[in-house]
Amino acid sequence: MASNIGNRIRLSIFGESHGPAVGCVIDGLPAGEPLDWAEILAQMARRAPGRDKTSTPRRESDTPELLSGTLGSAEQGDLRTTGAPLAMLIRNQNTRSGDYEELSRLPRPGHADYPGFVRYQGYNDIRGGGHFSGRLTAPLVFAGAVCRQILRRRGVHVGGHILEIAGVSDRRFDPAAVTDGLLEGLSVRPFALLDPAVEVPMRERVETARMDCDSVGGIVEVAATGLPAGLGSPMFEGMENRLAALLFGVPAVKGVEFGEGFGFAGMRGSEANDPYAYDKNGRIVATSNHNGGLLGGITNGMPLILRAAVKPTSSIGREQDTVDLRAGANAKLTVHGRHDPCIVPRALPVIEAAVAFGLLDAMETERPGD
Amino acid sequence: MASNIGNRIRLSIFGESHGPAVGCVIDGLPAGEPLDWAEILAQMARRAPGRDKTSTPRRESDTPELLSGTLGSAEQGDLRTTGAPLAMLIRNQNTRSGDYEELSRLPRPGHADYPGFVRYQGYNDIRGGGHFSGRLTAPLVFAGAVCRQILRRRGVHVGGHILEIAGVSDRRFDPAAVTDGLLEGLSVRPFALLDPAVEVPMRERVETARMDCDSVGGIVEVAATGLPAGLGSPMFEGMENRLAALLFGVPAVKGVEFGEGFGFAGMRGSEANDPYAYDKNGRIVATSNHNGGLLGGITNGMPLILRAAVKPTSSIGREQDTVDLRAGANAKLTVHGRHDPCIVPRALPVIEAAVAFGLLDAMETERPGD
Amino acid sequence: MASNIGNRIRLSIFGESHGPAVGCVIDGLPAGEPLDWAEILAQMARRAPGRDKTSTPRRESDTPELLSGTLGSAEQGDLRTTGAPLAMLIRNQNTRSGDYEELSRLPRPGHADYPGFVRYQGYNDIRGGGHFSGRLTAPLVFAGAVCRQILRRRGVHVGGHILEIAGVSDRRFDPAAVTDGLLEGLSVRPFALLDPAVEVPMRERVETARMDCDSVGGIVEVAATGLPAGLGSPMFEGMENRLAALLFGVPAVKGVEFGEGFGFAGMRGSEANDPYAYDKNGRIVATSNHNGGLLGGITNGMPLILRAAVKPTSSIGREQDTVDLRAGANAKLTVHGRHDPCIVPRALPVIEAAVAFGLLDAMETERPGD
Amino acid sequence: MASNIGNRIRLSIFGESHGPAVGCVIDGLPAGEPLDWAEILAQMARRAPGRDKTSTPRRESDTPELLSGTLGSAEQGDLRTTGAPLAMLIRNQNTRSGDYEELSRLPRPGHADYPGFVRYQGYNDIRGGGHFSGRLTAPLVFAGAVCRQILRRRGVHVGGHILEIAGVSDRRFDPAAVTDGLLEGLSVRPFALLDPAVEVPMRERVETARMDCDSVGGIVEVAATGLPAGLGSPMFEGMENRLAALLFGVPAVKGVEFGEGFGFAGMRGSEANDPYAYDKNGRIVATSNHNGGLLGGITNGMPLILRAAVKPTSSIGREQDTVDLRAGANAKLTVHGRHDPCIVPRALPVIEAAVAFGLLDAMETERPGD
Repeated sequence: MASNIGNRIRLSIFGESHGPAVGCVIDGLPAGEPLDWAEILAQMARRAPGRDKTSTPRRESDTPELLSGTLGSAEQGDLRTTGAPLAMLIRNQNTRSGDYEELSRLPRPGHADYPGFVRYQGYNDIRGGGHFSGRLTAPLVFAGAVCRQILRRRGVHVGGHILEIAGVSDRRFDPAAVTDGLLEGLSVRPFALLDPAVEVPMRERVETARMDCDSVGGIVEVAATGLPAGLGSPMFEGMENRLAALLFGVPAVKGVEFGEGFGFAGMRGSEANDPYAYDKNGRIVATSNHNGGLLGGITNGMPLILRAAVKPTSSIGREQDTVDLRAGANAKLTVHGRHDPCIVPRALPVIEAAVAFGLLDAMETERPGD
Repeated sequence: MASNIGNRIRLSIFGESHGPAVGCVIDGLPAGEPLDWAEILAQMARRAPGRDKTSTPRRESDTPELLSGTLGSAEQGDLRTTGAPLAMLIRNQNTRSGDYEELSRLPRPGHADYPGFVRYQGYNDIRGGGHFSGRLTAPLVFAGAVCRQILRRRGVHVGGHILEIAGVSDRRFDPAAVTDGLLEGLSVRPFALLDPAVEVPMRERVETARMDCDSVGGIVEVAATGLPAGLGSPMFEGMENRLAALLFGVPAVKGVEFGEGFGFAGMRGSEANDPYAYDKNGRIVATSNHNGGLLGGITNGMPLILRAAVKPTSSIGREQDTVDLRAGANAKLTVHGRHDPCIVPRALPVIEAAVAFGLLDAMETERPGD
Repeated sequence: MASNIGNRIRLSIFGESHGPAVGCVIDGLPAGEPLDWAEILAQMARRAPGRDKTSTPRRESDTPELLSGTLGSAEQGDLRTTGAPLAMLIRNQNTRSGDYEELSRLPRPGHADYPGFVRYQGYNDIRGGGHFSGRLTAPLVFAGAVCRQILRRRGVHVGGHILEIAGVSDRRFDPAAVTDGLLEGLSVRPFALLDPAVEVPMRERVETARMDCDSVGGIVEVAATGLPAGLGSPMFEGMENRLAALLFGVPAVKGVEFGEGFGFAGMRGSEANDPYAYDKNGRIVATSNHNGGLLGGITNGMPLILRAAVKPTSSIGREQDTVDLRAGANAKLTVHGRHDPCIVPRALPVIEAAVAFGLLDAMETERPGD
Repeated sequence: MASNIGNRIRLSIFGESHGPAVGCVIDGLPAGEPLDWAEILAQMARRAPGRDKTSTPRRESDTPELLSGTLGSAEQGDLRTTGAPLAMLIRNQNTRSGDYEELSRLPRPGHADYPGFVRYQGYNDIRGGGHFSGRLTAPLVFAGAVCRQILRRRGVHVGGHILEIAGVSDRRFDPAAVTDGLLEGLSVRPFALLDPAVEVPMRERVETARMDCDSVGGIVEVAATGLPAGLGSPMFEGMENRLAALLFGVPAVKGVEFGEGFGFAGMRGSEANDPYAYDKNGRIVATSNHNGGLLGGITNGMPLILRAAVKPTSSIGREQDTVDLRAGANAKLTVHGRHDPCIVPRALPVIEAAVAFGLLDAMETERPGD
């Protein structure tokens, strides 16, 4: 297995970029949960290609279709989970294959083409990246959009922002002061930032890269509020382990950190430790949150804070060195077609979705205080 | 479950710092594998407390005891796995509990005390950190030492070095030029560095922190050579997912990155992509290795490169703010006892061990080209 | 999770009887395996309702649709697995819900209605049994039909027969003499028997029950040849454990036995033990096969033999006692509609499919001699 | 992995008959559960060899030793789980290996010797059956004894009896009338029967077989009361699937059935369905219990009823045909040593233990009504 994760809630993702459809099965969702269809579509629109500046309604053709696991209807607003596996598909459009002969011979640097060729002995579908395509993140966003709604009813809110693109940085979350409202506000934006002033320079860097037939990477920062203390288990079932296993499933993610993360390397214990105090409501809180809400893999009741590094889009218009698998000789490759010069804005809702799925799965698998 | 991980090889770790013993069961090891007991002890000595400067032979009392899963004997040099679960224990010494009354009331900032208290409703063993203690990494090092030997016979070598302590940095691996010999050489050192000249300044920073009743963090870098291309599966069973799920099981690890990791955020695609070429032996290689040997979660035959951030030791001698769980009031806490002012050198062999376990498990679970 | 099983090959089944579709995702199939579409349809036809006497071609409307995981086409005969998750759906027809109000109040005796009501707090889809419907076995037959083809190319053959219906018995397999050809021959029949003479009396009993507005149960016997010795692992990953976990997923199965099974209770060790000998080809064989090809959960190279008990169809036309969940009072229920008076003939291909899936998963997860 | 099972509670069993020890790790037990040590020893004594007629206190040498996961002490009666993995070992005594040269050449019919030889390429420990030994059921009984106590505090009671030995039958449970008290009474007996009068003829048959250098098989029947309705999930996570996967992990178990099991084959639906009614307390009950408390794999609130077939002990004193693996020729084998001529009485507590573990794991994994 591979495209399959989760404990009590099990997510199975299927599809290939140019095959008939992509989709997923979510097995183990709680029964009777109302689903807001418009919210699901809105999350999927955040990830959809070519949308981040516009408010164009999502093309009907890319709408998810429910196959099982719900009763009621989106139109009448009474859609609910049944508790049975929730299956969904999205038909692929425009899957005329064009000429993939070159691609089958010349693995693209930075893509999974060559490892995939070896792994599947050349039998995998390479059109558009096949099962390795970024399109496979659409079902993950769908699953996350379902989970977010259930989490919200339990008081848990997930949201994030673009922290860095091509060296231009937004400010970080104030980790001890993240609010439900801030996250909910961010989680509906197409280009979510804490400091709107950095949008223009970020976009400029992306545009410059595009003009250079090149691409740029970045970092996203995601937070969750409202998590109870005591969620997670020691060692390998900690929240960090579970979330990292999900996040590295998002294509182009090459680094994951919690709280100060790699920044801890330059800190002292006296700075890094988060002291406790009773707040005015008699609740135990930490007065700082360098640990991102997690100690020993278990939530401490503070906001969860994590960051994921997203590498520059591998598909670039420049000529690159590669090999010709058929000829057994070195070769040159120029990747054609239009590709995002920066995937970070579209990766953000995917990473939020992965976090939402992981949090709900953990809450269903083990209740704090169990 | 929690302290339990792996696919075809399943590792179950048990123990509490001040209970009778710590240990593990490794279920699913291949049968007939010779075990070099001295190598196992040497790896365990790298992790053992208070050893990093000395060549003192390991105290007998801390020697692992085999309970099952092997035939032959260490003495006669004919120890081999049987294929049955390999169980091992290490007796705890000096487990007189002393006065833990204070600790049970006053959760230590930066430790899992408070989340653990909530998670286990106060029933967990808090003496010495209980099951959250760093001592629980001893069985992981044991498991890794077993796996390293099997990997080596399959041509795979694992090693690492201290990349940073308290702002003092070693140089990074040259990711496309890491050799088996380099890794094997590093993997036996107590304070492994690529540039020996940084040892003195690193130690000075640690010593300064100790004098300040404080602690410092750092980063370790680990590599593996000899991995076949095509190992790993897409999405959630990629090598990045599996290794991250293991690495975040090591206490104090708060960030994990592969290849350039967070450095990708400032790179362009034309820099980040690793071009392919045929080498003089007609083998496909990448001419650079920014992706750390992994594309789409699957090995490409280049060295695996990863880094893990280690936070400063939470136990510091300074007075800290906390709460008194019994009194329901704010309180002051001073952690007594001797604690490592920097855990990074001892974390390195643990992280190498986690990588070795993850790689062997992946190789046993799915063979490239399957 | 629930409708989700397997180690290296993971099967996720979705759907509800009267929802939009039923289907499955099979994650982890080997890549490059040719698929014979006609064979898949033929297996599905064996399970389809109302077919067991006829050779009517399957209604187009019930044809599975491939969503991912294959390349090529059924028509051109070049359909192959890609190694990516293979997803399939079958649209439900005639799902006008009719009047399910009564059913939602009055749980049917012998069905999962009442446990399902409690389990899902009343939110599950009860129309036609919802996710508990026998229709959910269609995707399992599909998965089994895929696995059978791959197994056959590896020399493994799966087939079975109706051993008993309503007290009328076929003869048992001669366990040491089952041949590939016998199993392949049985595995395409709509009403598979070793002794054709028992078909008439079996059908008579079924017909009598139908006239009585009642139903009857039975037993199926399934075998597999060509399995290598050494497949399976001790204790909980033995072939018996894996297959039983699959077989009890088939609705109405209430008992599973291997080899002599419950018959061992009346045997002596000297009768039950299977002696070994070298055959004329120098291969080790057992000269009898009371253990059904399995010792300690591991194959010994003899044919695998198992039996599954199938309870009488729960839906019967007679008035039955039940409760009215809404009124909180005892009530009478008469189940309307046409129901199979005996599900055994249709259960046979489902049970064969579950066995085929379990065998291929085991062969992919652990190779004998690993 | 192999000797490893469970969802939220994960059981890992280790050991070899003549190695240093057998034992287990139970990861995921709820925290703060009091453990009655005497009850644990009593259950282990039921399984211990050579005890079924006597009340001799258990030999100290076979006492389990706790390694982790508890606080307090058995002596002071304040032993409790901590929530961390509970590890336990039992030292093996008298493990002088004697002459196993013959055994390594001549696989015993009916044992796992030959499949194990192939599976582990001859590297497995064959002394006393190694990891396949019945001695490995001791840790399972231990785990079950822990789980029973926790279950009892939740109102769930597990017990069973010998239903058949060598053709002599006890009466079956009255499935709708099993009481907590009946089960608790049975669960402490060394030779548990509903009808004490059958003990003598059963023992006579065993004695006769022993005199014949032969062995006999039998059937055990186990029940559980107090289970809430709604426990279990559809298809592959039903209680039948989970329990069968556990039960086939008990050596010599070759068949498992629930409710009427194979008896359903001769029943009609009108007999097999269990009607519902409100009892005098306004609770929904079934007025019969042919389905053994399970419909669609989910509990209906009635007693759980299951039966397991136990094959005759494979080790018999008679000469048997086998092969000489070294000489590559047919050979004769006479198994020496004292072996139980009937394993059924000792298998009963093991099977009860497996059921107890499975029930607690299910209750921790999914709460009814979740």
